[in-house]
Amino acid sequence: MSIQETPASASDPILDPAAGPVELTRQLCNIHSVSGDERAIADEVEAMLRRHAPHLAITRDGDTIIARTELGRDRRVAIAGHLDTVPINNNLPVRDETDPETGAAVIWGRGTVDMKAGVAVQLALAVELVAPAVDVTWVWYDHEEVASDLSGLGRAMRNHPELFAADFAILGEPSNGTIEGGCNGTLRARVELHGTRAHSARSWMGVNAIHRAGALLARLAAYEAERVVVDGLEYREGLNAVRIDGGVAGNVIPDRCCIEVNYRFAPSRSADEAVAFVRDFFVDADAVEIVDLSPGARPGLDAPLAQRFVAAVGQEPTAKLGWTDVSRFSALGIPAVNFGPGNALLAHADDERVPVGQIESSFSALRAWLSAAQEPLAK
Amino acid sequence: MSIQETPASASDPILDPAAGPVELTRQLCNIHSVSGDERAIADEVEAMLRRHAPHLAITRDGDTIIARTELGRDRRVAIAGHLDTVPINNNLPVRDETDPETGAAVIWGRGTVDMKAGVAVQLALAVELVAPAVDVTWVWYDHEEVASDLSGLGRAMRNHPELFAADFAILGEPSNGTIEGGCNGTLRARVELHGTRAHSARSWMGVNAIHRAGALLARLAAYEAERVVVDGLEYREGLNAVRIDGGVAGNVIPDRCCIEVNYRFAPSRSADEAVAFVRDFFVDADAVEIVDLSPGARPGLDAPLAQRFVAAVGQEPTAKLGWTDVSRFSALGIPAVNFGPGNALLAHADDERVPVGQIESSFSALRAWLSAAQEPLAK
Repeated sequence: MSIQETPASASDPILDPAAGPVELTRQLCNIHSVSGDERAIADEVEAMLRRHAPHLAITRDGDTIIARTELGRDRRVAIAGHLDTVPINNNLPVRDETDPETGAAVIWGRGTVDMKAGVAVQLALAVELVAPAVDVTWVWYDHEEVASDLSGLGRAMRNHPELFAADFAILGEPSNGTIEGGCNGTLRARVELHGTRAHSARSWMGVNAIHRAGALLARLAAYEAERVVVDGLEYREGLNAVRIDGGVAGNVIPDRCCIEVNYRFAPSRSADEAVAFVRDFFVDADAVEIVDLSPGARPGLDAPLAQRFVAAVGQEPTAKLGWTDVSRFSALGIPAVNFGPGNALLAHADDERVPVGQIESSFSALRAWLSAAQEPLAK
Repeated sequence: MSIQETPASASDPILDPAAGPVELTRQLCNIHSVSGDERAIADEVEAMLRRHAPHLAITRDGDTIIARTELGRDRRVAIAGHLDTVPINNNLPVRDETDPETGAAVIWGRGTVDMKAGVAVQLALAVELVAPAVDVTWVWYDHEEVASDLSGLGRAMRNHPELFAADFAILGEPSNGTIEGGCNGTLRARVELHGTRAHSARSWMGVNAIHRAGALLARLAAYEAERVVVDGLEYREGLNAVRIDGGVAGNVIPDRCCIEVNYRFAPSRSADEAVAFVRDFFVDADAVEIVDLSPGARPGLDAPLAQRFVAAVGQEPTAKLGWTDVSRFSALGIPAVNFGPGNALLAHADDERVPVGQIESSFSALRAWLSAAQEPLAK
């Protein structure tokens, strides 16, 4: 779609990259972009790039935009961020505030953390850096905050695999402006315990499936999840019941109890190993069904390209615990890290807010890394 | 309502007391009478009594019929049975079969056990015994198989308390033709465990309410319910989880788990004592709400009237474990027992069936007791 087809954007563009990443954050947040409704913001981003970044080769896939430098560099990095947010809750338009806990200047409102500030940093650099030290594949995509199979990033990777070749990837998910490497994997399983129904007035004639769950839940409560060091970063795991249900009626001994468990596993474990662990842990259950499985991503911080990025950021990298789309790059064989302004614990919260200073420092670090390393990097 | 107002019944009555209790069982079963739809069967019963039992004073309350002898006897017994059944399941009309387990002749189909055979025995005797040794208050009532507050017996007791004065009561619930004295009480409670929500990628920041349920369920599984002897009968108790639910989403540490428990307690315990026991058992829970509470009923088999009934039946009485409407008589200060043909374990089952021999023996025993003891009984 060309900008001529979107008169509102063409006549009165909202996004102004010359205003810098902080103002761009405000501009991006104030465009309604709840998952499934990303067309307006994707149109704005595309129009802005076509107007201000003629050095980029732009591909549009639904509401995902892929914008590439084609400088013939030895190395290429992918830098990606999602355009959608979770639903607003009286927290738009954004406003400038002082953080009640830290006293820092913040932009307050939906999307500031997750992840318009990260997208703003990326857009500002995409326009400014006409000749970065490495080729860059910028990606802004739709449908991140919803079911994994709707992901715009996943769809674009399937539709245009040739555009996603890269040596390293950075995802702009909030990481307090530090590098959070890789991510844990996640698995969900339904664990069933069976019994035998009976009238509860003669309970000894039945087998109570909910009672049988007691030993299993007690074992879960006592289990101490591991801490696993992968490529120098510590990944803390977790094994938790997240749902339970069972029962037939108020006067019937229940013959079925189902526990849904969520296993967060270090990226050093394969998906198969995670499945084997869960099946072994619940070996005394009557059925274990894996209902969701996404492998983790190793941080890949041992590559020279990554090491220079760590130096540019100037802070010790840590492990990303939540599952993020770095896993999609990892699945393509591309080491990937999370790097963006904002505290992930405030994502989706009603008091979501991003420190202005983190937007600026993230912008500076990414800019320095992309600009300074003009000498060719060893393959 | 008089029979003149129900032309179908008046012109073509279904119930024929002269055919005896076995044929009456078949006739009663084949009148559709699922709870809430008892009008047709109540009309038939009323019409039959008005035609064949002019010695009875009849009161109708909704679809409950109260029919009393008024002989001025020293003693009065109440003999009651419910007219409704649970929904049918391709098991009507009834048919004559040979029991696949015992080889006995049975009537097979919905309602045979619970409790048309018992009602048939009662109706046949109500017509035949124009001068029983004790005055009798016969009661046939609606809405037994549904929520307790809908009970036709409870309603009739509230509307006509003067009609329910009695020295002893017999409820025709299936008891294999033996006397099952009193009944256990029943209590249901909702037991809540609370926690603190967190993202399951950082589970250590929350408190898992479902995990907390583990110790409680393990304690329930290990608990050995008591056996309590009351008036010579052993009442076996039970304490069981009957439902459980908890959970927020597949990636959230749950902050709430709710367990519904059912406590069946011996009639020697008061309702208050039962509540205190449950509150003490779950003292470490965050909330315990009593949602249902019906006290038990002592068997009252020490009264001379009851002792003669035991002698007439000729078998050792046992304790009734399920809660039955004997408790409603007990609450009025009237000792009460269950006595009817059929195996209670087959009630509501798709293979519900009653032995013909038990209908006949129950009829004979009840007839002998009501007829023979012509000498006045000591108060």
